Amino acid sequence: MPTPNYTLDPIGRVIVDDDGFALSIYEPYRPALAELDGFSHINVLWWAHLLDDPMFREMTIAERAYRNAPAQIGIFATRSPARPNPIALSAVAVISIDRDEGIVRVPYVDADDGTPILDIKPYHPSVDRIREVRVPAWCATWPQWYEDSATFDWGAVFESAQ
Amino acid sequence: MPTPNYTLDPIGRVIVDDDGFALSIYEPYRPALAELDGFSHINVLWWAHLLDDPMFREMTIAERAYRNAPAQIGIFATRSPARPNPIALSAVAVISIDRDEGIVRVPYVDADDGTPILDIKPYHPSVDRIREVRVPAWCATWPQWYEDSATFDWGAVFESAQ
Repeated sequence: MPTPNYTLDPIGRVIVDDDGFALSIYEPYRPALAELDGFSHINVLWWAHLLDDPMFREMTIAERAYRNAPAQIGIFATRSPARPNPIALSAVAVISIDRDEGIVRVPYVDADDGTPILDIKPYHPSVDRIREVRVPAWCATWPQWYEDSATFDWGAVFESAQ
Repeated sequence: MPTPNYTLDPIGRVIVDDDGFALSIYEPYRPALAELDGFSHINVLWWAHLLDDPMFREMTIAERAYRNAPAQIGIFATRSPARPNPIALSAVAVISIDRDEGIVRVPYVDADDGTPILDIKPYHPSVDRIREVRVPAWCATWPQWYEDSATFDWGAVFESAQ
């Protein structure tokens, strides 16, 4: 049994430029993209590198994270990238995959240019898509589907702009 | 701007015993469970510690991972826990949360007793539940919903038992 070392090796980075959004995968990991074609969506795990700092990693409570919500919300009840292990999860649509160049084009990802990417997983409805889902009252007015988030007024949800 | 150190601190561990399945959260992180009540499901990120080994982390291709699928599938097109960064993602239902004791009871999680837990995130339909989703032909017969996976014959999908 190996001794876990709990260290991460970024497999690529997010690119945001005039061509839009892309996931640039480092050369050694490009073979791992084989057969990813055909999945309409992927789960991207990325490292919130700007928050990989004890100050943010020791936070357990988010203060006034959302409007019309409890003033204090536990970090595990938020999707904030400031968390003990600053791993963010974003489901994103796939536009195209260039395996040789290691470029996965996506319409959007909520990460900055240069953000380290940790993992790509296929979005499988069998494990990721829950029919009967319930959320607390304080976020019950948020969209009930991924697609509806694109046109939703998120500004009304967040207490203060970033 | 901090220098990322890319190291993880487990926030708890999976418990599998006669009482069933639970996520045991270490004391310093228990305040982060506040307001998680009310979410029917959570996304659990766990560390596949038995596969945190160069032999597995250097794998980019899964051989004969699934029956009736291409013989070679890139790791990023699978949910295999053997991957460059062995972080697994499991959506699980929540039975109860004991914040003082740091115990989140769940009906099931596909991780062994003692598995390190890295993160808990609320399952938000606004970002996690995709209405229009497409998968490749080789897994098109798999369940289209999380709930349907419980009764699905997964034995027919996996080429060889673990």
